[in-house]
Amino acid sequence: MIVGVLGGGQLARMLALAGTPLGLRFRCLDPSPDAVAGHVAELVVADYRDEAALARFVAGVQVVTFEFENVPARAAQWLAEHATVAPVPRALEIGQDRVFEKRLFASVGMATAEHRAADTRAELHAAVAAVGAPCIVKTRRLGYDGKGQVRLVPVPSLSAAIDAAFDSLRPAESGGLVVEQMVAFDREVSVLAARNGRGEVMVYPLVENEHEGGILARSRAPAPEVPEKLVREAGEFVSVLLRELDYVGLLAVEMFVKGDRWIANELAPRVHNSGHWTIEGAECSQFENHLRAILDLPLGSTAMTAGGHATMVNLIGSLPARADVLAIPGVHLHAYGKAARPGRKVGHATALAADRATADALCARVAALPRSSGSGLA
Amino acid sequence: MIVGVLGGGQLARMLALAGTPLGLRFRCLDPSPDAVAGHVAELVVADYRDEAALARFVAGVQVVTFEFENVPARAAQWLAEHATVAPVPRALEIGQDRVFEKRLFASVGMATAEHRAADTRAELHAAVAAVGAPCIVKTRRLGYDGKGQVRLVPVPSLSAAIDAAFDSLRPAESGGLVVEQMVAFDREVSVLAARNGRGEVMVYPLVENEHEGGILARSRAPAPEVPEKLVREAGEFVSVLLRELDYVGLLAVEMFVKGDRWIANELAPRVHNSGHWTIEGAECSQFENHLRAILDLPLGSTAMTAGGHATMVNLIGSLPARADVLAIPGVHLHAYGKAARPGRKVGHATALAADRATADALCARVAALPRSSGSGLA
Repeated sequence: MIVGVLGGGQLARMLALAGTPLGLRFRCLDPSPDAVAGHVAELVVADYRDEAALARFVAGVQVVTFEFENVPARAAQWLAEHATVAPVPRALEIGQDRVFEKRLFASVGMATAEHRAADTRAELHAAVAAVGAPCIVKTRRLGYDGKGQVRLVPVPSLSAAIDAAFDSLRPAESGGLVVEQMVAFDREVSVLAARNGRGEVMVYPLVENEHEGGILARSRAPAPEVPEKLVREAGEFVSVLLRELDYVGLLAVEMFVKGDRWIANELAPRVHNSGHWTIEGAECSQFENHLRAILDLPLGSTAMTAGGHATMVNLIGSLPARADVLAIPGVHLHAYGKAARPGRKVGHATALAADRATADALCARVAALPRSSGSGLA
Repeated sequence: MIVGVLGGGQLARMLALAGTPLGLRFRCLDPSPDAVAGHVAELVVADYRDEAALARFVAGVQVVTFEFENVPARAAQWLAEHATVAPVPRALEIGQDRVFEKRLFASVGMATAEHRAADTRAELHAAVAAVGAPCIVKTRRLGYDGKGQVRLVPVPSLSAAIDAAFDSLRPAESGGLVVEQMVAFDREVSVLAARNGRGEVMVYPLVENEHEGGILARSRAPAPEVPEKLVREAGEFVSVLLRELDYVGLLAVEMFVKGDRWIANELAPRVHNSGHWTIEGAECSQFENHLRAILDLPLGSTAMTAGGHATMVNLIGSLPARADVLAIPGVHLHAYGKAARPGRKVGHATALAADRATADALCARVAALPRSSGSGLA
């Protein structure tokens, strides 16, 4: 049984590593011959819009899934016509557009930050006036890891800042803009849940996320100090969302905690960086549960393994020496096999411990290790 | 960094699955194009004695290791001359020969079953007379999974049984024979330990093994009801053995418990079926620790994960339906991607639980599932 994955990066690679023990085989489509899923899966190297390549990609494949939501519309349409695709294309469409996401959240009763869409320069000025500063201007589409967004600073001139944002974000190429009120949140968290075709839903323990420069730096599960009532509410919200979308697969929803309430931020219709800790920290990982879901198999337990507390740090730009990481007891290294490059996610490390402080301290040791200049794995 | 593995079966496959997250790449050499490690690693398809293929296999490889000990002597010699090889060839030589194994055990003070080597028919009769019935005749080399051995039954005629054993075991092709006294043991166990080039040694919790028809059926860790003193002694024996051999890698030693003493049976200079539970049941699996050892990296913890009790059942011949296995909570499926065939190890399942009875019961449910006629994974 072959699973097709659009994209051949680290998420596809970890899907293949999780699914191989289930007896599955994997075929990835990626424009780059260096795509790192190719180390453990068949790799079709082609542009996503190359229909001949898409045909080779889906031949004999049981189900097609995605490691990213920004699938070119033409490819998504072709795939939906020629193969079983999960999650549903509608979730992809919504996950590609920040305004659609917020509409979906609102439709199931989830609060969102105040926001206003804007396609033209004049609309952007009006939107900023309506939402009020401080605010943030984002492209509706194609943003990731803090790219495609500008925080508006009213000094020296708010009007000039709006014009500069409009010019730099190129709304014509990225589906327009959206102005969002800055939310002075207490915590950023994510809810990860899987749903299979029979409607079974499993929700992972809530994850707290910390970003640096717009890129996820650290995730901790279960999220510390979030009241049980809020945790339950978040899981319920996401369960409703999954049903509403008739979603099949793993869904990640990023939310803010502010006081005693939730503000939904965005969703990712795929396995998610904030769920990497589940490989060792949960009884069944997000990767295995995504595969179980899209193959309509019974879902696995999302409970924490008995360590009880997991902390994950992303390794960005380059890796520490392998021996340095492995010398830290209780730490699991995940090197993605990618070349070093500033700002690039090249690996992560997860620490499990019976208490929060120990898990955090182990990951802090990993984060403090000197980085090599190369791939870090010489 | 590329690790070369001689052999491309499930052990090589699980080595690749464990090592990929460390940023390693794998190249396997196997005579079969269907070798299942090829699903997740580069596969060189050739006979082990094909020197041109061996040269392609070792090009650019950091270290060569083995998934089986019966490496043809010519291949082992060629590899030792052209690449860094771990574990040491001497351990392979010893692991290939039941008499060498017993001599090694004796040299470090480990008791073995009474035994006598025999190359000719006359020597076999003399050996049986010396050892005494009941006894078992084994080929010194190339035996596995209960193959290459005959239990001598003195009815109707011991002499005729000896002749029949001599004829069926073909001693000229399998390095001669050895007659071993039957040990009325209480338990069969194995000790798994890893040692790296710096001499660091990590010993896994003792494993109890149950065989059916000569093939490992079930392993349980930690081995129930073995006195702490015996557990400590077994670990010490194996640590001495590792040092004595200057061994680098994972070593498995099969032993019998009889009353309050140990009888060493055989060793496997490689990752071992009785250690598959370590993938989920130990903090660092036998596969990852073997790789850490041969790359001279710090070893990982061999402690049980907090579940505390692991039971593994082999899936032999064919697999149950995937959905049936995954419906059992707390069970981890490992399908090797092999075609069904009677007597063939095609997968295993591991259950973790906080108590022995639950882990055993979960695996009993797996073992009782109906088997499909095909690969079980349709």
